[in-house]
Amino acid sequence: MTVVRSTLPDEARQVTGDALQETLVDLLGLSLTGKQAHWNIVGPRFRSIHLQLDEVVSAARGFADTVAERAAALGTPPDGRPETVAARFSLPAPKDGWLRDDEVVQLMVEALDAAIGRLRSRIEATEKPDPVTQDLLISITAELEKQRWMFEAENAPRD
Amino acid sequence: MTVVRSTLPDEARQVTGDALQETLVDLLGLSLTGKQAHWNIVGPRFRSIHLQLDEVVSAARGFADTVAERAAALGTPPDGRPETVAARFSLPAPKDGWLRDDEVVQLMVEALDAAIGRLRSRIEATEKPDPVTQDLLISITAELEKQRWMFEAENAPRD
Amino acid sequence: MTVVRSTLPDEARQVTGDALQETLVDLLGLSLTGKQAHWNIVGPRFRSIHLQLDEVVSAARGFADTVAERAAALGTPPDGRPETVAARFSLPAPKDGWLRDDEVVQLMVEALDAAIGRLRSRIEATEKPDPVTQDLLISITAELEKQRWMFEAENAPRD
Amino acid sequence: MTVVRSTLPDEARQVTGDALQETLVDLLGLSLTGKQAHWNIVGPRFRSIHLQLDEVVSAARGFADTVAERAAALGTPPDGRPETVAARFSLPAPKDGWLRDDEVVQLMVEALDAAIGRLRSRIEATEKPDPVTQDLLISITAELEKQRWMFEAENAPRD
Amino acid sequence: MTVVRSTLPDEARQVTGDALQETLVDLLGLSLTGKQAHWNIVGPRFRSIHLQLDEVVSAARGFADTVAERAAALGTPPDGRPETVAARFSLPAPKDGWLRDDEVVQLMVEALDAAIGRLRSRIEATEKPDPVTQDLLISITAELEKQRWMFEAENAPRD
Amino acid sequence: MTVVRSTLPDEARQVTGDALQETLVDLLGLSLTGKQAHWNIVGPRFRSIHLQLDEVVSAARGFADTVAERAAALGTPPDGRPETVAARFSLPAPKDGWLRDDEVVQLMVEALDAAIGRLRSRIEATEKPDPVTQDLLISITAELEKQRWMFEAENAPRD
Amino acid sequence: MTVVRSTLPDEARQVTGDALQETLVDLLGLSLTGKQAHWNIVGPRFRSIHLQLDEVVSAARGFADTVAERAAALGTPPDGRPETVAARFSLPAPKDGWLRDDEVVQLMVEALDAAIGRLRSRIEATEKPDPVTQDLLISITAELEKQRWMFEAENAPRD
Amino acid sequence: MTVVRSTLPDEARQVTGDALQETLVDLLGLSLTGKQAHWNIVGPRFRSIHLQLDEVVSAARGFADTVAERAAALGTPPDGRPETVAARFSLPAPKDGWLRDDEVVQLMVEALDAAIGRLRSRIEATEKPDPVTQDLLISITAELEKQRWMFEAENAPRD
Amino acid sequence: MTVVRSTLPDEARQVTGDALQETLVDLLGLSLTGKQAHWNIVGPRFRSIHLQLDEVVSAARGFADTVAERAAALGTPPDGRPETVAARFSLPAPKDGWLRDDEVVQLMVEALDAAIGRLRSRIEATEKPDPVTQDLLISITAELEKQRWMFEAENAPRD
Amino acid sequence: MTVVRSTLPDEARQVTGDALQETLVDLLGLSLTGKQAHWNIVGPRFRSIHLQLDEVVSAARGFADTVAERAAALGTPPDGRPETVAARFSLPAPKDGWLRDDEVVQLMVEALDAAIGRLRSRIEATEKPDPVTQDLLISITAELEKQRWMFEAENAPRD
Amino acid sequence: MTVVRSTLPDEARQVTGDALQETLVDLLGLSLTGKQAHWNIVGPRFRSIHLQLDEVVSAARGFADTVAERAAALGTPPDGRPETVAARFSLPAPKDGWLRDDEVVQLMVEALDAAIGRLRSRIEATEKPDPVTQDLLISITAELEKQRWMFEAENAPRD
Amino acid sequence: MTVVRSTLPDEARQVTGDALQETLVDLLGLSLTGKQAHWNIVGPRFRSIHLQLDEVVSAARGFADTVAERAAALGTPPDGRPETVAARFSLPAPKDGWLRDDEVVQLMVEALDAAIGRLRSRIEATEKPDPVTQDLLISITAELEKQRWMFEAENAPRD
Repeated sequence: MTVVRSTLPDEARQVTGDALQETLVDLLGLSLTGKQAHWNIVGPRFRSIHLQLDEVVSAARGFADTVAERAAALGTPPDGRPETVAARFSLPAPKDGWLRDDEVVQLMVEALDAAIGRLRSRIEATEKPDPVTQDLLISITAELEKQRWMFEAENAPRD
Repeated sequence: MTVVRSTLPDEARQVTGDALQETLVDLLGLSLTGKQAHWNIVGPRFRSIHLQLDEVVSAARGFADTVAERAAALGTPPDGRPETVAARFSLPAPKDGWLRDDEVVQLMVEALDAAIGRLRSRIEATEKPDPVTQDLLISITAELEKQRWMFEAENAPRD
Repeated sequence: MTVVRSTLPDEARQVTGDALQETLVDLLGLSLTGKQAHWNIVGPRFRSIHLQLDEVVSAARGFADTVAERAAALGTPPDGRPETVAARFSLPAPKDGWLRDDEVVQLMVEALDAAIGRLRSRIEATEKPDPVTQDLLISITAELEKQRWMFEAENAPRD
Repeated sequence: MTVVRSTLPDEARQVTGDALQETLVDLLGLSLTGKQAHWNIVGPRFRSIHLQLDEVVSAARGFADTVAERAAALGTPPDGRPETVAARFSLPAPKDGWLRDDEVVQLMVEALDAAIGRLRSRIEATEKPDPVTQDLLISITAELEKQRWMFEAENAPRD
Repeated sequence: MTVVRSTLPDEARQVTGDALQETLVDLLGLSLTGKQAHWNIVGPRFRSIHLQLDEVVSAARGFADTVAERAAALGTPPDGRPETVAARFSLPAPKDGWLRDDEVVQLMVEALDAAIGRLRSRIEATEKPDPVTQDLLISITAELEKQRWMFEAENAPRD
Repeated sequence: MTVVRSTLPDEARQVTGDALQETLVDLLGLSLTGKQAHWNIVGPRFRSIHLQLDEVVSAARGFADTVAERAAALGTPPDGRPETVAARFSLPAPKDGWLRDDEVVQLMVEALDAAIGRLRSRIEATEKPDPVTQDLLISITAELEKQRWMFEAENAPRD
Repeated sequence: MTVVRSTLPDEARQVTGDALQETLVDLLGLSLTGKQAHWNIVGPRFRSIHLQLDEVVSAARGFADTVAERAAALGTPPDGRPETVAARFSLPAPKDGWLRDDEVVQLMVEALDAAIGRLRSRIEATEKPDPVTQDLLISITAELEKQRWMFEAENAPRD
Repeated sequence: MTVVRSTLPDEARQVTGDALQETLVDLLGLSLTGKQAHWNIVGPRFRSIHLQLDEVVSAARGFADTVAERAAALGTPPDGRPETVAARFSLPAPKDGWLRDDEVVQLMVEALDAAIGRLRSRIEATEKPDPVTQDLLISITAELEKQRWMFEAENAPRD
Repeated sequence: MTVVRSTLPDEARQVTGDALQETLVDLLGLSLTGKQAHWNIVGPRFRSIHLQLDEVVSAARGFADTVAERAAALGTPPDGRPETVAARFSLPAPKDGWLRDDEVVQLMVEALDAAIGRLRSRIEATEKPDPVTQDLLISITAELEKQRWMFEAENAPRD
Repeated sequence: MTVVRSTLPDEARQVTGDALQETLVDLLGLSLTGKQAHWNIVGPRFRSIHLQLDEVVSAARGFADTVAERAAALGTPPDGRPETVAARFSLPAPKDGWLRDDEVVQLMVEALDAAIGRLRSRIEATEKPDPVTQDLLISITAELEKQRWMFEAENAPRD
Repeated sequence: MTVVRSTLPDEARQVTGDALQETLVDLLGLSLTGKQAHWNIVGPRFRSIHLQLDEVVSAARGFADTVAERAAALGTPPDGRPETVAARFSLPAPKDGWLRDDEVVQLMVEALDAAIGRLRSRIEATEKPDPVTQDLLISITAELEKQRWMFEAENAPRD
Repeated sequence: MTVVRSTLPDEARQVTGDALQETLVDLLGLSLTGKQAHWNIVGPRFRSIHLQLDEVVSAARGFADTVAERAAALGTPPDGRPETVAARFSLPAPKDGWLRDDEVVQLMVEALDAAIGRLRSRIEATEKPDPVTQDLLISITAELEKQRWMFEAENAPRD
C-alpha cells in the first residue's frame, strides 16, 4: 500500500529513507539508554550527570520525532517499534543494574562518538539525493558533538 | 553490588520491585508504540488521532520516569534498555508500515485495556508490601482508564 | 446502548457509579450556590469572603469535571443536567436575595460539613470495588475539609 | 432589604434587572448542558466536539459572572441557584445517557439558536433604559453567534 | 497651532472634546484620591480595602490614558496637568491625615456615585456626535458601577 | 449552495454582508501594504517607523479574522483571495521599490484617513440591520483612528 | 535610486533576488488562500482542518517576513503588494464561496506540492550564488513538506 | 489622632517626614506632567519620545507609592491629593496644548535636573535621622539621573 | 477553647492529631537543618549539594504547611514554635560550624532514613482513623524516599 | 578549621559576624512564629490576616537566607539550627493553641517593633566595619517597618 | 595536553579551528564596541539606536558562545581573553568619548561589512572539512547581514 | 565636546568618574575571563563549575552596563573598548588552553579577591562625593563576595 507519495525520485528516496530509518534507531536507542543511565547512575557526580543525561534524552527524543516525520513526509513509513530498536541498535550501551558515574561518562563519550561517526557518513550520502534531509542530519550532529564534548571534558584526567 | 539500600524488608521489596519493573516495561512499550502509530497513521481522522496519541505518549513517558525513580529509591535498579523492553513487552502492538485510523483506535483500546488489567493486579499485590507504590500505580491506572475511554468513545458505532 | 465497556465487574461498577454520580451532584450544587453567595454577599467582610467563595467554586468545578470523566471512563454516563442537580441536591443552600456576610460564612460551614460527611461514607463504600475512585474521593475530601476550616476559623466567636 | 442602591431610576432598573436575570439563567443552563454533552458524547468526531464544547462552557461561565455582577451593581440581587436554573431554563437540552456526536452538534445549534433569539429581544429592550447593559448583551450575542456558526458549519450536509 | 486635524466636524468635536476632557479630570482625580486613601487608611479592614483601592486606581489610570489619547486622536490636546486637575476636580475627596476604614468605604461610594452620574450625561451627549467616544464612556461607566457596588456591599448594615 | 443559514432577515443580511466584505478587503489590503512599507522604508527614522508599521499590520490581521468569521457566522461566505483584494482595494498604496520614511508616514495618514471615512459610513449603515456588526466596526475605527493620530503626530511640521 | 548596496556581486544578486521575490509571492498567496479556506470550510472535519489551516498561514506569514527582509538585506527591494501577488501567484487556489472539507484537503496537498517543486529548483539555483539564501529556502521546504504530508495522510483512502 | 506610632524619635521623624512628603509631591507632579507630554507631543521623534516618557511616568508612580508607604510606616500620613500636588509642585512643567518634540526633551532635562538637585539635599538631610529613608532617596536619584542623561543625550547638538 | 470543631470522632482525632503534630516537628526540623547545611557546606561537591539541599528544604516547608493546615482543619491547633521544634526534634542533625560535603551527604541519608521510618509507622496508625491524613503521609514518604535515594546514590563507594 | 577566609580585618569581622548571627536568629524566629499564627488564627479577620502573615514569613525566610550567606561569605559560619533559634530568640511570641485575630495583630506589631529596634542598633554598629552589611540591614529594616505599619494600621481604634 | 579528542581528522580540524577562533575574536570585539557605542551615543536618534545596538550585542554574545563551544567540541581550546581580543580584533571601532548618532550608524555599517566579508571566506574554507561548522557560520552571516541592512537603511540620504 | 552636563560639582565628578571607569574595566575583564574558563575547563567537576561561571559572567555583564550608564549619566563618557580593557585589566587571569577544574576554582577565588579589595577602596572614596555611586559599588561588592565564597567553599581541603 503506497499511501503517501514521495516528492523524491525512487533512488533518492531509497538512500534518504535508509539514512533516516537508521538515524531513528540510533536516536530512540540513545533516548532509552540515556534514561537507563539517568536512573541507575551512582557515585559522587550523581546529580550533575543525572541532569546532563536528561538533556541528551530530551534532544534525542526531539530529533527522533523530526526524523520520523521527515521519513513519513518523504513517503517512507518509519519504524520505531521496540523490537526494531532492540534488533538494530548497535551503539555502546549500559549493562544491567547500578552504574558508576565514571562508567556512565565513559559510556556516553563512546556512544556519542559512534553515533557521530555514523551520522557523518549519512551527511555525505544524502548531499545529492536530498539536501533538506542532509540539513537535518547536520543539526543533529552539531548537537551530539556538543554533548560529547561535555562528557569528555568531564572525563579529563586530573593531572 | 548493593548500592542503594531499601527502606523496605526483603520480601516487600521483591514484590514491589517486580510490580514497578513490569509497569516500566508496559509504559516504555506504550510510549514507543504510541509514537509508531503517531507517525504512521493515515485516514480522515488523521489529525485528531495524531494529536491524541501524543497525549498518551507524554503521559506514558512521565509515568515511566516516576516509576523507574521509585524503583531506584527502593533499592531496585530499574531496567528500561531496548532489549529488555523488546523481550518483555506483551501488550497488543502495531504492525509495520502505514496504519489506518480505525485500526489505530481499536489497537489503542486493546493495548490500554490490557495495561489496565495488569495494573489492577499490581495494585492488589502491592497494597500490603508498600502503600506508597500502590498509590502511584493507582494514579497511573486513573490516567490510562481516562485515555481508554476517549479512544472507545471515539470508536462507538454511529447508530 | 452500552457504548463504553467498563474495566470493572458489574457490581463494583454499580457501587462506584453511584458514588461518583452523587458526588457530581454535590459538587455542581456547591459550585452554583457558591457563586450565588459570591454575587449576593453584603457586609464589612464583603471583599474577603467574595474572593474566598471563588476558590470554593473553582475547586468544585475542577473536581466535578474529574468525577464525571471518571464515571464515563468506567462505563457509567454521568448526569449533571440542571433538573438533575435541582432534584437531587440536598446540602444546605442560600435563600433568595442579598446575604449578610456572617450568614454566608455560617452557610458555607454547614454545606461543606454535610458534603464531607457524605464523601466519607463513599470513601468506605468504594475501597474494595475501586481503589482508584476511592483515591479521587479522598483528594476531594481533603480539599473540602481545608475550605471548611477556613470558614469556621473566620466564624470563631470574638471572646 | 434594599442594600445596594441603584444608579438607575426605578423603571429602567426593572427592565434591565429582568433582562440580566433571564440571561443569567440561560447562560448557567448552557454551561451545565454543555458539560453534560462534553462528558457523554460518543462517535468518530468525539475528540473534536469534546474540545469545542469546553469553549462554549468557558464562555458561558465567564459571561454569567459578568451578567450577575452587573445585576448586583445595579441594585438587583441575581438568582443562579440550582432550583431557579432548573425551573426557568427553557432552551433545548440533552437527554440522559450517551449522546451520538451528530446529535450533540444538532442540539448545540438549536440551543444556541434559541439563546440568541432571546438575547436579541433584550438588546432592543435595554437600549433606552441602560446602554451600558445593552453593550454587554451585544458582546454575549456576538460570541454565541460565532459558536453557533461553528456547530452549524460542522453539521453541513456532505453533498 | 492646529497640529492634528480632526476626523469629526467642528461642532461634534467640541462636544466630544469637552466630554473627554472632563472625564480625564475625573479619572486623574480619582486615581490621586484613591491612592491617598490607599496610603492613609486605618482600621480592622485595613488590608482588604487597601488592596481594593489599588484596583480602582489601576482602572482609573488605564482609562485616563485611553481617554486622553482619544482626545488627541480627535484633534483636541488633552489637559491633565496638576493645576488643571486641582482646579476642576469636583468629586468628593478625602480630608488630610489618617482615614478610618468605614470613612474610606463611604467616601468611595460617594465619589464613584458622582463620577457615574456625570458619565451618564456624557454618554447621552456624545451619542450623536461620536459613537466611538460614547462606546468608550460606556465601558468606563460599567467598570465604575462595578467598583461602586463592591464598596456599597462592603458598607451594608450588619443587621 | 446556502450552507450556513443567517440569523438575520434577508435585507439586513445583504447590507451587513456588504459592509463586512468591504471592510475585509480594506483590512487585508492594509496588512499587505503595511508590510510592503515595513520592508522597503529607508531614512533616519527607519527603525521607529519600521516597528510602528508592524503594529498596524498586526491590528489589521486580527480584525480581518474577526470580520471574516462574523460574515461566515451571518451566512455570507467572505472573500479574501488575492485577486479579490487586488481588484477591490481602493485605499492609497505604496509605489514599487524603496520608500523614504517621510513618504511612508504621509502614506499611512492618507490610507488610514480613507479607511476611517469608509468605516464611518458603514457604522451608520449597519446601525439598524445589525448592532452587533456595528459594534465590531466601531472597535476597528477606534483602533485605526489611534494609529492615524500617531502617524500624523509624527508628521507634524517642526515649527 | 540604489539605496542599500548588496554584499553580493551583480549576477549573484540577480539570481538570488529573483528566487526570493518568487518565494515571497508564493508564501503571501498561500497565506491568503489558506485564510480563505479557514473561513469558508464546511463539513464534519470542519474544526480539525480549520485549526490546521491556521498553522499553514502562520508558517507562511513568518517565512514571508524573513524572505522579504533577506531580499532587502541583499539590496533588492521586495514586492508584496496586492496587485503583485494577484498577478504572479500561480499555485492552485480555492474557488469563491463555501468549501467542502475534503476539497480543502485535496487543494492544500496540490498547492503545497506545487510550492515545494518550485522551491526545489530555487535551492539548486542559489547554491553557488548565495549559500545563505539557499539555507533559508531549505528550511521553508522542510516545513512545507511536513505540512503537505499531514494533509496527504489525512486524505489517504480508507483501504 | 496619632494612629501609627513612629519607630523614630520625634525630631528625626520630622526631618524624614518632610523629606518624604516633598519627594512625594515631586514624583506625583512628574508623573502627571510626564503623561501630559506623552499625550501632547508632536514632531518627527514622536514615537520614540512618546515611549520614553512612559518609562519616566512608570518609574515616578512606582517610587511615589514606596515613598508614601514609607511615610505612613514612620507615622506621618502622606498627602498626595490633587490640591496639594498643585499647590506645592515647583518643577518646570509643560504649557497647555500640543508640544514640539524638542521642547519636550528640553523640558524633561530641566524638570529632572531640578528634581535631582532637591533629592540630593534630602539625601544629606536624612543621613543621620534615618539611613533607611536615605537609602530609598538614593535609589530614586539614581533612576532619575539615568533618565535625565537619556533625554540630554537625545538633545545633543548634531555637530 | 474548642474553636474549630472536628469532622472526626474524638479518638480518631487524637491519633490523627498526634501523627500530624509529630510530622510537623520532623519537617520543620528538617527545613532548619537542611538550610544549616546549605550555608555551611564546604568541599569539591559544594555547588551540587548546596543546590540539592534547597530542594529538600523547599519540599519540607511545603509539606509542613499542608500538614499544619490539615491539623487545624481537623480541629487540632498545630504547634510549630521554635521552642517546640527544639524540644521535640529527634532526627540526626548537623554540628556547629563548617561541614565537609561528604559529612553532609551522610547526615542527610541518616536524617531522611529516620524520618521515613517514623512516617511509615504513622501511615499504619492512621489507616483506620483517617484515610485522608494517611494519603497525605504517603505522599510525604514518597518524596522523602526519593530524596534519600539521591543522597545515598551520591554517597556510593567508588569501587 | 578556618575554611573560608574573610575579606575583612579581624575586628571588623567580629562585629559584623555578630550582627549577622543575631539577625539570623530574629528572622528565623519570626518565620516560625509567623507560620504558627498563620495556622492558628481564628476570628472574623481570619482570611485577611492569614494571608498577610504569609507575606511576613516569606520576607523573613528570604532575608534569613541572604543574611546567612553573607555571614558565610565573610568567613563566619552562620548558626540557624533549631536549638540555637530556640535558645536565643527573644522577640515576643505566640502562646500555644488557637489565637484570636486581634491578639495576632497586636503580637505582630510588638514582635516587629522589637526586631526593628535591634536592627537599628546593628545598622549603627556596622557602618564603619562593613558598609556592605549595613546596606543589607537597612533593606531588612525598611521591609519590617512597612509590615509593622500595616499591622498597626489594621489595629487602629475604630473611634 | 590533548584533553578533548576531535571527531575530525587533523587537517580538517586545523582549518575549522582557525575559522572558529577568528570568528570568536570578531564577535567578542563587536560585542564590546557595540556596548561602547550604546553607552556613548548622543543626538536626536539616541533612543532608537541605543536600543538597536543592544540587539547587535546580544546576537554577538550568543554566537560567540556557540562558536567557542563548537571549537571546544572539536578539540580546539578557544581563546577569548582580553589581550587576545585586543591584539587580533581588526574591524572598524569607535573612538574614545561621546559619539554622534550618525557616526555610530556609519561605524556599524562598516564594522558589520568587514565582519561579513571575513565570514564569507570562512564559509568557503570550511565547506569540505566540516559542513557542520559551515552551517553555523552561515547562520551568523545571515544575522549580521540583516543587522547591517538595518543600519544602512537608517543611513540612507534623505533625497 | 561636553555633551552631557554633570549633576555633580567638578571635583566630585572626577573622583566618581575614575571609580566607575576602573570598576567598568574590572567587570568587563571578569566577564571575558569568566567565559574563557567556562569554555576551557576540564575535569570531573566540569559541569558544575561550567554553570557557576556563567552566573559570574552574567552578574559582571549586568553590573558593567549599570556602571557605564551611571558614568554617562554623570557626564563622563565610559570606555569599555577591547584595547582599554586589555591595557588596564590587572586582576589574575587564566592562561591559554584547557584549564583543570581545580585551577579554575583557585583562579576565581583570587580574581574575585582582588576585585573586591579594589571595590572596597572605591566605596570609601565615593562616600562623600556621590553616595548614589557608593550605593551601586556596595551592591556589586555584595554580589562578588557571595560568588567568591562559593568558589572558596568549593575549594576547601577534603580533610
